[in-house]
Amino acid sequence: MVPPPPPELLARARLLAGPEVGPAMEQALERITGRPVERDGAAGGGPYVYVGAALPDALRGDGLVWFHSVNAGTDALLGAGPWPSGALLTRTVGRMGERIAQYVLAWVLAECQSVPEFAAQHARSEWRRIPSELVAGQTAVVHGTGRIGSAVAGLLRSCGIRTVGVARTPREAPPGFDEMVAADAPVAARWVISALPLTDATAGYFGADRFAAMGGATFVNVGRGATMDLVALEAALHAGSVGRAVLDVLPDEPAAPGDPCWRLPRTVITSHSAGITADDDILADFTACLRDLTAGRMPALAVDTGRGY
Amino acid sequence: MVPPPPPELLARARLLAGPEVGPAMEQALERITGRPVERDGAAGGGPYVYVGAALPDALRGDGLVWFHSVNAGTDALLGAGPWPSGALLTRTVGRMGERIAQYVLAWVLAECQSVPEFAAQHARSEWRRIPSELVAGQTAVVHGTGRIGSAVAGLLRSCGIRTVGVARTPREAPPGFDEMVAADAPVAARWVISALPLTDATAGYFGADRFAAMGGATFVNVGRGATMDLVALEAALHAGSVGRAVLDVLPDEPAAPGDPCWRLPRTVITSHSAGITADDDILADFTACLRDLTAGRMPALAVDTGRGY
Repeated sequence: MVPPPPPELLARARLLAGPEVGPAMEQALERITGRPVERDGAAGGGPYVYVGAALPDALRGDGLVWFHSVNAGTDALLGAGPWPSGALLTRTVGRMGERIAQYVLAWVLAECQSVPEFAAQHARSEWRRIPSELVAGQTAVVHGTGRIGSAVAGLLRSCGIRTVGVARTPREAPPGFDEMVAADAPVAARWVISALPLTDATAGYFGADRFAAMGGATFVNVGRGATMDLVALEAALHAGSVGRAVLDVLPDEPAAPGDPCWRLPRTVITSHSAGITADDDILADFTACLRDLTAGRMPALAVDTGRGY
Repeated sequence: MVPPPPPELLARARLLAGPEVGPAMEQALERITGRPVERDGAAGGGPYVYVGAALPDALRGDGLVWFHSVNAGTDALLGAGPWPSGALLTRTVGRMGERIAQYVLAWVLAECQSVPEFAAQHARSEWRRIPSELVAGQTAVVHGTGRIGSAVAGLLRSCGIRTVGVARTPREAPPGFDEMVAADAPVAARWVISALPLTDATAGYFGADRFAAMGGATFVNVGRGATMDLVALEAALHAGSVGRAVLDVLPDEPAAPGDPCWRLPRTVITSHSAGITADDDILADFTACLRDLTAGRMPALAVDTGRGY
């Protein structure tokens, strides 16, 4: 990871913002930093601080000292071109762990309590009792044990679900996990949840073999779509080794109306909505990073641009 | 509350069972008690122990020493005729608190995470992002602060929801509650949940005044249908003082296909399914009561037949 920019360099940097930064956030950034937000400032020369989702090509030179991403996932940003050496990258996590955890628990409980089925019965004016499934004592395997995976596990555990984290290298269980296992350790689980980032090591991670080993579990993907092979998922859904799928992400987003993904059996796709960040999330995380950098500390939200997360 | 029957009386009592007790439960009861289950035993004379949902009229005399209800709610049982003086009534709670708590949290999160909307979008092959609503920091008011209300509050609190219990008389907050208030104390709440039993004091409890004071909250009824006035609820839904309603129970169940309840706006009815008890629940609670009675103790699941719960 690159060292943080010296505070004196940061103090005289210009502040640029991408189109994702609307008028309200622009005003807030000006208040927080005490300098104007410029929209087209590459012509004037660095040093620059940039807040946005994508790096303009004009800024790939030496002037960029700090880029704050309005998103948590930085794979698209880093994949768009070479990252300027020496530029620090930080990201917005916001309350994303909490949001995604509530998303996962919502869909877990919705399945156990037949929420979509009751909505459909009601629409037909049909009174029919449906017994519920208690989640207490069930097992969830969570792939991806960083902040988000940890938040997901912690919330599932509060409903009595046993949480098993998957790690590439043996290590202590992070908060929220009852135990850790190696990537392909056999675990009988009711739920398999992916909170994996997209990196060279995770692209296509969920393929035919991993889906075949799921034993009828419901698969929930709140990480990145390209970590899964949709053709293999479809085969596993037909074979029953994946019982149901809840996909917040897809390899190609957005899905067009004619995309075959909409016809996957026992699947719901939720349009990459699990972790939508609010402006307040972005401002809070930018402010925390700025505070660290002003004090000469590396922000906790810094991204290792080599590893990709 | 009547004193528990003497253990020596219980030891020679005959065991009768209602039609709700199927062959598997009958065998289990015979194993647990060491005596045969009789189906039509009133002719032979008491003392009797009865396991079922409703008391046959032939048993309203002196012979009944203990009735174990396969249900948690005993209002229908007690309302069907005078209760034989001296007969102990116990009930099945099972894992009902846990079941109903998961039901409530499922519908709370389903609303915040737009579960029914995403299911409908998916059916239309529509990719459209919908931001979620975080429940942390919201307030839930829970009417009914016994075992079930307490379990509901405890689970909501694990998602960061502030839980306020309503009590007729001031008392300490039961487990799961952040605070207690009097019945008509004004509390701004996102969620109003009823886990009230049906008694003389709670019939029609949710009427025009209480609904008008809900400030747009979602109303969830997992207690008894007759605690609410459906005409008043409909008016409140139209006026907006009740934002949405999730009704597991109705004053008249089951609802026929033509019942106007199906046309209440922004409402879902779930066919009295939140707390369906399993045979294992009934056997476990019967066994616990039997153990207490054999030792001469009052079972924790005893019902005060005067109060009705």
